[in-house]
Amino acid sequence: MGSREGHTATLFKESALTLDSGATLSPVNVGYETYGTLNADRSNAILICHALTMDQYVASTHPITGKAGWWERIVGPGKILDTDKYFVVCSNVLGSCLGSTGPWEDNPETGEPWGLDFPVITIRDMVRTQAALLDHLGVGKLFCAVGGSMGGMQVLEWLTTYPERLHSCIILAAAARHTAQNIAFHEIGRQAVMADPKWQEGRYYGKGSKPDKGLAVARMTAHVTYLSEDALTHKFGRNLQSRDALSFGFDADFQVESYLRHQGSTFVDRFDANSYLYITRAMDYLDIPRRYDGRLADAFAAATHVRCCVISFSSDWLYPTVENKRIVHAMNAAGVPVSFAEINTPHGHDAFLLDEPEMDQMLEGFVKAAAKTGGLTP
Amino acid sequence: MGSREGHTATLFKESALTLDSGATLSPVNVGYETYGTLNADRSNAILICHALTMDQYVASTHPITGKAGWWERIVGPGKILDTDKYFVVCSNVLGSCLGSTGPWEDNPETGEPWGLDFPVITIRDMVRTQAALLDHLGVGKLFCAVGGSMGGMQVLEWLTTYPERLHSCIILAAAARHTAQNIAFHEIGRQAVMADPKWQEGRYYGKGSKPDKGLAVARMTAHVTYLSEDALTHKFGRNLQSRDALSFGFDADFQVESYLRHQGSTFVDRFDANSYLYITRAMDYLDIPRRYDGRLADAFAAATHVRCCVISFSSDWLYPTVENKRIVHAMNAAGVPVSFAEINTPHGHDAFLLDEPEMDQMLEGFVKAAAKTGGLTP
Repeated sequence: MGSREGHTATLFKESALTLDSGATLSPVNVGYETYGTLNADRSNAILICHALTMDQYVASTHPITGKAGWWERIVGPGKILDTDKYFVVCSNVLGSCLGSTGPWEDNPETGEPWGLDFPVITIRDMVRTQAALLDHLGVGKLFCAVGGSMGGMQVLEWLTTYPERLHSCIILAAAARHTAQNIAFHEIGRQAVMADPKWQEGRYYGKGSKPDKGLAVARMTAHVTYLSEDALTHKFGRNLQSRDALSFGFDADFQVESYLRHQGSTFVDRFDANSYLYITRAMDYLDIPRRYDGRLADAFAAATHVRCCVISFSSDWLYPTVENKRIVHAMNAAGVPVSFAEINTPHGHDAFLLDEPEMDQMLEGFVKAAAKTGGLTP
Repeated sequence: MGSREGHTATLFKESALTLDSGATLSPVNVGYETYGTLNADRSNAILICHALTMDQYVASTHPITGKAGWWERIVGPGKILDTDKYFVVCSNVLGSCLGSTGPWEDNPETGEPWGLDFPVITIRDMVRTQAALLDHLGVGKLFCAVGGSMGGMQVLEWLTTYPERLHSCIILAAAARHTAQNIAFHEIGRQAVMADPKWQEGRYYGKGSKPDKGLAVARMTAHVTYLSEDALTHKFGRNLQSRDALSFGFDADFQVESYLRHQGSTFVDRFDANSYLYITRAMDYLDIPRRYDGRLADAFAAATHVRCCVISFSSDWLYPTVENKRIVHAMNAAGVPVSFAEINTPHGHDAFLLDEPEMDQMLEGFVKAAAKTGGLTP
């Protein structure tokens, strides 16, 4: 895995992070991991932005689940994002629960966990925090910012907010704003959490119980949106779980039921319910074109030097190709060099995390070409 | 509205209804409504089969909500299903909560509400109950059986179980079996209900509280599947609810959130949570081809005399055109006369309940043609 570190940086100690809401946070902790070594001219840094329920353990073992890093297929020595060559940084997003400041942390003013007194954050607030972390690490300009799903949304905000700090970027299965359907599914998840009496208006910390049942239902709902109908049919169909016939009861007769229950019940061990509320809210609030009077191209006006790669997946109904194409069209209209492909796959939104050979080829080619123009050995 | 009655029939008093599970029920109450008059030769009866959360109040005021009947656009004097000409029957499905036997009713053996001791039922069990009701009403053969969504599933079971009692049938936005994705969304709803501590393993009756919060989340989830993404975008987009700017809080900022919360909170006043579990389970259990070794055509072998009409809706992702076409292909393979159309509409699954002029034209033409061959004045 090359060199790696597991760290928490405490930023904004003397100053404060000003959020889109107008609220400020001081200090701000950021949990992060790095892989590989920053080169002498500090030109080989890659920032990986993670998705909603992911974390900084992109290529190292998760401290709670003990599972391998979530993108070890792509990140590591000799891999597409080669840690023998690049200095890869991945930080836990602001608001999340693996070392970064969020609703689970103590409010410095009261000494009690923030709960719902934590300010509502945005994707851009996450990105501001990442920029401060990179300052802390001595990284000025990124060779590349990479992200899928909410990670891709962060990369888009990097393009609008810090274009001068980017040489290239990769956006997978993302969107520049949340649609009504996206908001609807997140709202169901939030209502499921808030319906759980153990949620206690967000003040469940240190009380020996937490809204696990509500959060599990939220996770089940989200999980269905990550898979295509074809993927569900292919993976489970109407197969029965450990039985030969229907039980005529309410146990998990079908494999798909058992699978979803498992997804729900394991999620609650590694994720904080309030963090889930805050991060889904940040995603729902995303509407980059709105900040530019509906002209998304204007968001990219200062990014014409950034080489961009956008990839969508044919069976992704959460952030479908049409939403990714909106980004590509706007980039083209702004004169931003962009490579785009829709990968044909039955795996739905989750495809960006899976073994998709066409995606790998495109990523590999893009990174090599970007390295050439970035003065790095391709 | 022509003549109309509101009734509850008590059936299987001396005998018993044997369910697909092998369990028996005796007696079985059936809440029903009729519109129009049965003619002398008893050849003008139409059975309308209702969807998951609908009821027998197809063309009369709902006793709880006070709202107009759910299909008054189609059923009534001079309407497409003309109650001046036809005798229209609609009964509350077995397992539901508006007058028909279900988990809310007292178990005659214990004198206590059934709760989860109520036997798990199937769509075919609902149809067996309807057939017994028609016997009770003196209707042998139906001029037509009509239903959308779960109503269409019932019509399909009429075709497999009582083909000799049908002259014609109409199936809207349905499927012959539930897919993994269909099961997944229902399972989320059931888990949301069961996660509510007020559910109390189904024993909440008479205790002054019920699992309203869980049932509301279930309803919100289902409701999103009834609308297309386009419909949600067209109806709500990212419009804000009664405010000019984002609140940076967890209130319903967006209209779509407010709408879903309203759908959830009003549903619990008119529907029983356990009934919701039983009826969704019945739908998930539906797999007509499985009973015929995967050959759906064999299910229709005895129905070659029944004129059928199948209609799907282009933006319906719950029971998409491909599932409706499976039914049509099987009917054709079996030699059953079938008319089929996919209606081009942005309204998603709910389109079958909405004003869709193309659907109306097709229904009107089909009913007139079927009346001719049924010896009725078209």
